[in-house]
Amino acid sequence: MSKPSIPQGTRDFSAAVVRKRQYIFQTIRTVFETYGFQPLETPAMENLNTLMGKYGEEGDKLIFKILNNGLDNPAKLEQIKADFDKVLEGKNTKGITERALRYDLTIPFARYVAMNFGQLTLPFKRYQIQPVWRADRPQKGRYREFYQCDADVVGSNSLLNEVELTHIYQTVFNQLKVPVEIRINSRKILAALAEVCGGADKLTDITVAIDKLDKIGLEKVKEELTQRGLSNEQINTIEQYLQISGSNTEKLATLTQLIGHTTIGAQGIAEVQHLLNYATNIDALVADFTLARGLNYYTGIIFEVKATTVQMGSIGGGGRYDDLTGLFGVPN
Amino acid sequence: MSKPSIPQGTRDFSAAVVRKRQYIFQTIRTVFETYGFQPLETPAMENLNTLMGKYGEEGDKLIFKILNNGLDNPAKLEQIKADFDKVLEGKNTKGITERALRYDLTIPFARYVAMNFGQLTLPFKRYQIQPVWRADRPQKGRYREFYQCDADVVGSNSLLNEVELTHIYQTVFNQLKVPVEIRINSRKILAALAEVCGGADKLTDITVAIDKLDKIGLEKVKEELTQRGLSNEQINTIEQYLQISGSNTEKLATLTQLIGHTTIGAQGIAEVQHLLNYATNIDALVADFTLARGLNYYTGIIFEVKATTVQMGSIGGGGRYDDLTGLFGVPN
Repeated sequence: MSKPSIPQGTRDFSAAVVRKRQYIFQTIRTVFETYGFQPLETPAMENLNTLMGKYGEEGDKLIFKILNNGLDNPAKLEQIKADFDKVLEGKNTKGITERALRYDLTIPFARYVAMNFGQLTLPFKRYQIQPVWRADRPQKGRYREFYQCDADVVGSNSLLNEVELTHIYQTVFNQLKVPVEIRINSRKILAALAEVCGGADKLTDITVAIDKLDKIGLEKVKEELTQRGLSNEQINTIEQYLQISGSNTEKLATLTQLIGHTTIGAQGIAEVQHLLNYATNIDALVADFTLARGLNYYTGIIFEVKATTVQMGSIGGGGRYDDLTGLFGVPN
Repeated sequence: MSKPSIPQGTRDFSAAVVRKRQYIFQTIRTVFETYGFQPLETPAMENLNTLMGKYGEEGDKLIFKILNNGLDNPAKLEQIKADFDKVLEGKNTKGITERALRYDLTIPFARYVAMNFGQLTLPFKRYQIQPVWRADRPQKGRYREFYQCDADVVGSNSLLNEVELTHIYQTVFNQLKVPVEIRINSRKILAALAEVCGGADKLTDITVAIDKLDKIGLEKVKEELTQRGLSNEQINTIEQYLQISGSNTEKLATLTQLIGHTTIGAQGIAEVQHLLNYATNIDALVADFTLARGLNYYTGIIFEVKATTVQMGSIGGGGRYDDLTGLFGVPN
């Protein structure tokens, strides 16, 4: 008999911890509801084709797939063997796995909206507090099962949604007595940087490299950009961009000099400026153009929340994505 | 692009339904805590060897296994192919799947107790309200993802635990305004029936057949018992047993005539009598010797709760199991 254990990267929660977590979830739930968000719950399992291709190549590899049952059916032996050969090539096949554990709450939400679009009253504001699963390398503060607490709006282009979300962040973390900085950027600003560096085809390379700045530092980011084929001149521009500093106003002024002449850059700057103008009572709001966010689906303002009194990764994040349900054939 | 859908047997819960479910869970949680049960949460995933072999052969087949990542690693190709051959034979292998979704909350609880036995103060009373997953055929009222709400006691032999659990059932369903019958039996009574029919080796056959009585009726149960090799005389005894009727007192009197002369039968009858004596204020308590429960780990009183005003399967169930952590090498 083997000694009992739990899977790497997962945790049991005893009574004292369950109560603390319930307090945190209840605080967040109450704030979300105060701002008019309604609860939604989706299944832990999604069809594999709902998830695949939505999180980038790295994300796809971190999805926990569920093995089909009945693979010992002798009548289907040949087909199953052929299907497994595809798995060995790194491809997916319904014969071996049709379902997977959700990787985040955003894609299941987009799937829900796409499935129920005709029945929803827009703007549709929902929140979702449920666990997600990632086959990531477990490490301090990084688990394979963890909760996300999402609030999303579909069917409104207004930047007031972003203003509202900064208020939600501030209220939640105030109530939880966790001092934070809410950092903002816009994907349009990153797109403008790519444009200034020679084109949209550089955007993913630049975003992926910048996303690692916190972890690996400027020199390594520059090395990675070189490896990704960017010229010294381009890297020089990106370095200038990454070194923008000062107050929010000062940063925006420097940024305007660097990318303000591009159409998309001017749009991004206007978005950030707009958010800063409307959220004047939120001291914690910091323009941070080094912010990139890992996922590809963002199109406008992106957020990241950092605790200022503890050394750890971000404790909140998100952003605007346009037409996410378009992934499921339902434009919005 | 395929039309978005969710996996068979799973559900999205919109705001109105989430709120109703939260009300139900909160009612149950409050009653559990009133009776001194403390919350516990365990991961959705367990190591496969924690789950396998605990639910009987049928149960094993209904476990959702999680596919290992990295099966396209060329360096391990031969080993992975060999491992998959075992899957094709209906065996499990760590090379293909190491983890699975929990099938119930009882085995994860036993695993938790076994892992933390030295740290627990006995009796240890915990409750757990979390989803479980079963690769069952979806049908009305039967889903592949559903919540269980469990309250368990470890480290006490007292039958007052059973008395307390009947009070919990009554209080919860009273508060939810769902009229119920709480049916009780004892596995010792079923063991005595097997003994009267010729031995302990008949117990599983008899239990499995009786468990289907509700669904298939007496004649089909008798057919199944014939197929399982029981003689007409034995089946005649079982039929007498299944037809015991009347008030709780009348039923116990008839049962005593049938199996009361066996040691284990007398013990089982005493357990049921004890519970009925102490839970006098619970009108809903009904001795029902046709009650069997599907899972094998029960050893004493078993429960099943039926709504009296709606036609559906049981809405609660459980029972006493002795030394469940023994499965993990930790006797209790």
